[in-house]
Amino acid sequence: MKSEHAMEEVHFADETPPLKPESEGLWKVMIVDDDDFVHKVTELTLGDYHYQNTPVRYLHAYSGAEARALLREHPDTAVILLDVVMETENAGLEFARHVRKEANNSFVRIILRTGQPGQAPERKVITEYDINDYKHKAELSEQRLFTAITAAIRSYRDLRTIELGRLGLQEVICASAALFSAGSVQDFFVLALEHILRTGRCAGPCCRENGLVALGTDGGFEILESRGLASGPDNVPVGRLRELFERASREGRVLVLDQEFAARFFNSHTDQDFFFYVFFGRPLSETEQGLLHILGGNIAVALSNLFLTEEIVATQREVVLTLGEVVETRSKETAHHVKRVAEYSYVLAIKAGLSDERARLLRMASPMHDVGKIGIPDSILFKPGKLTDDEFSIIKTHTVIGHSILKGSPRRIMRTAATIALQHHEHWDGGGYPHGLVEDETHIFGRITALADVFDALSCDRVYKKAWPLNEVLDYLREKRGRQFDPFLVDIFLENLDEILAIRVAYPD
Amino acid sequence: MKSEHAMEEVHFADETPPLKPESEGLWKVMIVDDDDFVHKVTELTLGDYHYQNTPVRYLHAYSGAEARALLREHPDTAVILLDVVMETENAGLEFARHVRKEANNSFVRIILRTGQPGQAPERKVITEYDINDYKHKAELSEQRLFTAITAAIRSYRDLRTIELGRLGLQEVICASAALFSAGSVQDFFVLALEHILRTGRCAGPCCRENGLVALGTDGGFEILESRGLASGPDNVPVGRLRELFERASREGRVLVLDQEFAARFFNSHTDQDFFFYVFFGRPLSETEQGLLHILGGNIAVALSNLFLTEEIVATQREVVLTLGEVVETRSKETAHHVKRVAEYSYVLAIKAGLSDERARLLRMASPMHDVGKIGIPDSILFKPGKLTDDEFSIIKTHTVIGHSILKGSPRRIMRTAATIALQHHEHWDGGGYPHGLVEDETHIFGRITALADVFDALSCDRVYKKAWPLNEVLDYLREKRGRQFDPFLVDIFLENLDEILAIRVAYPD
Repeated sequence: MKSEHAMEEVHFADETPPLKPESEGLWKVMIVDDDDFVHKVTELTLGDYHYQNTPVRYLHAYSGAEARALLREHPDTAVILLDVVMETENAGLEFARHVRKEANNSFVRIILRTGQPGQAPERKVITEYDINDYKHKAELSEQRLFTAITAAIRSYRDLRTIELGRLGLQEVICASAALFSAGSVQDFFVLALEHILRTGRCAGPCCRENGLVALGTDGGFEILESRGLASGPDNVPVGRLRELFERASREGRVLVLDQEFAARFFNSHTDQDFFFYVFFGRPLSETEQGLLHILGGNIAVALSNLFLTEEIVATQREVVLTLGEVVETRSKETAHHVKRVAEYSYVLAIKAGLSDERARLLRMASPMHDVGKIGIPDSILFKPGKLTDDEFSIIKTHTVIGHSILKGSPRRIMRTAATIALQHHEHWDGGGYPHGLVEDETHIFGRITALADVFDALSCDRVYKKAWPLNEVLDYLREKRGRQFDPFLVDIFLENLDEILAIRVAYPD
Repeated sequence: MKSEHAMEEVHFADETPPLKPESEGLWKVMIVDDDDFVHKVTELTLGDYHYQNTPVRYLHAYSGAEARALLREHPDTAVILLDVVMETENAGLEFARHVRKEANNSFVRIILRTGQPGQAPERKVITEYDINDYKHKAELSEQRLFTAITAAIRSYRDLRTIELGRLGLQEVICASAALFSAGSVQDFFVLALEHILRTGRCAGPCCRENGLVALGTDGGFEILESRGLASGPDNVPVGRLRELFERASREGRVLVLDQEFAARFFNSHTDQDFFFYVFFGRPLSETEQGLLHILGGNIAVALSNLFLTEEIVATQREVVLTLGEVVETRSKETAHHVKRVAEYSYVLAIKAGLSDERARLLRMASPMHDVGKIGIPDSILFKPGKLTDDEFSIIKTHTVIGHSILKGSPRRIMRTAATIALQHHEHWDGGGYPHGLVEDETHIFGRITALADVFDALSCDRVYKKAWPLNEVLDYLREKRGRQFDPFLVDIFLENLDEILAIRVAYPD
């Protein structure tokens, strides 16, 4: 968890005036005509044209070739007023075909304006080309042009509105795939917050957005992740968060308000309450609100999957640790020997360059390494004095007994545990048991567990001995480097002694 | 798994000619005018009008009120040719407002046709009403009408195309939420197949669709789920499936072909190959293909989550069973006592009306019921003869020892196991130990485990006794009904003896 400071006040970034959701707050109208006069007259005729309080920006092209380049630069053009005859007799029609087929732009509305109707017979053109209006230049009065442009921009707006919804959904789907693939709750929070912010992010650079993920505590909230907070003079009191949190609990998980997103997700396994809050700093459109609802729903499903998986994995670890420990010590006193060995092994595996996945596998399997001791009689296992050769031979069998208990399973954790049980008494120089394996004939998991197990045994009290002082234990490891233990692992162990000792402090007997 | 027959030939339903994806294969054009002559002339003028090989169907309304009713009936109307002055001076404009605001239809294109321009000044109307074209009746020549209708239908088509994509995405999102919530792989297959079929389902009733989910086997496929197969004379040989399966393996998981969907999903935990195949019987549109790719990707993510969860749960069960068994028998001989007790308990829980979730919890926790025996010396635990009172007192402590080993965990399974460990020697009449609880003072899990444990102990060989014949075991349960055991549970046990005995056969010692 990134930050654990208690939150008293939440600071938001500076407020800036919200932009229109439309690309740059204006409608782009491209005039394509080889006659400069037509350009001038068109602008003059339309004058200070606005549609829905948004002005028009005119783009000018004087040939089909120029128009192509201009459209590449402005793919968000709303309307093209298109002449037919330019550098060739049907340069305009060729450009119209290019727009739909090659530039793949099905949004821009094309109004064909022809001066010589004979060149482009109306019926043929309107049928064969994917254009949206056909006008004779002669009859294009101010009023007609006004109507044509208004209808075209309106159509463009309708198309863009649905398209924005479609794109938003596509983003939600990508977001969801990412969310459902998140490996941990922490990763998930970072991702989910990012996707909520993105859904409500407007095209312009200056839209204010602030968000956080918090864990509900007795007194208030503990912030786990935050974006854009504490960077401005603006404050939102914790009271507002608490109010929304309570509303989210009462009305259902996801609240999408005019400018805010708030949701509460409850982990029933751990009785933890998680709270998402985002303040967008501008009113959300209906489309955005709909998308946020869908995204919120997906977050809920993905999170409850993740909570469940984390619970199962945590339970599995506890089962293995608890049963491994009681088998090891054969008593109800559940000390922390197998837990420490598991944690030491994890650290050694990571430092030895194993992947986190393999290191976790080792940590999960390692507590079962002594399960074979179940087959050794009390009288030998708990004998206070020195063992006879026969008794020691019996003790040694705990490796093969453990292996035979665990090896039958097809599960990866169990198979791994079987290998560890069999090999954790092998020595680097071949002097170990049961098989006298040499060097890396012993699996890396076996070598790691061997070192971790001996370190813990020596540095703690046992029925037959007192704990050794740390320096004596370390001397022992150095002495046995390259003989009993993998020399590379002993080096790693000594280099990372701080982490090892921290584990011993965290899980004392 | 629904059917396990080997598949030699796959039969598909009859082929029928595919319909156009558009709603009913025609464009609906509504003429709204109080003058019957206008209706007649419009139809006459447009004649046998087609757009993209699809004909027009004319709908007729003679007033604003009629138009509202007609639109309710035909919300998929493409174009409205709208008169202004009808039952009132601006009945047409009122209807236009109704279409957008009340009927919430932003798809239908509205062409206003006015006979008295003074009644509806063009600039004001085009600005204030969400209409798409403004025409004077006087100037509506055949060519003009043709152009206006073509442009309007084209706009409608563009809007519908994006909207269909958007709706498809929305369905994929709903599908994904359902898929990610699936509790088991089987449920998942049914759902996933349904959603793939739905994505490619055309509006008409007669589109052919056939699908299956299969498990790859050495020889070919084992069908797990199928839809619409084996109901027609048409055959697709297994060879085609094998070909696509190999292609899916080679090129990536999801193949979307002209008329087919094929995907392979590999469970790396179990080395199982799952294969989805759907034949749609008509060419898929680009939108549909895109949606199927997205859906396929989501299926992959959801399925790999599910595989992982199933693996973790299975591993957890094995860990608990294996360790529970070795603690119970204190030997490397992993017999099946705790496994049988777990399975008997599951059956009894279900038959006693507990939810599947609770029954599974009991099954998972039950193998740990005797974990406290770890604290009992060999000499007492394995004593062949009769125990002294003191020795029996020590044996009895395995309940509280087990409880104290397990109770420290916050995990549900461990807490449940702690309760079972403590209570599985209590009697219905209060004569049990350690606390002499009466009737339902003992938790239902404790009562169930008590019965299952004694049944298994009596009907199998133990170190201190031979197995009893079945009839003697059942006589014992009947005799102890309402004394040692919950009478209700004994009844359930006897009523479901077949299932109980099947478990004993499945897991022998």
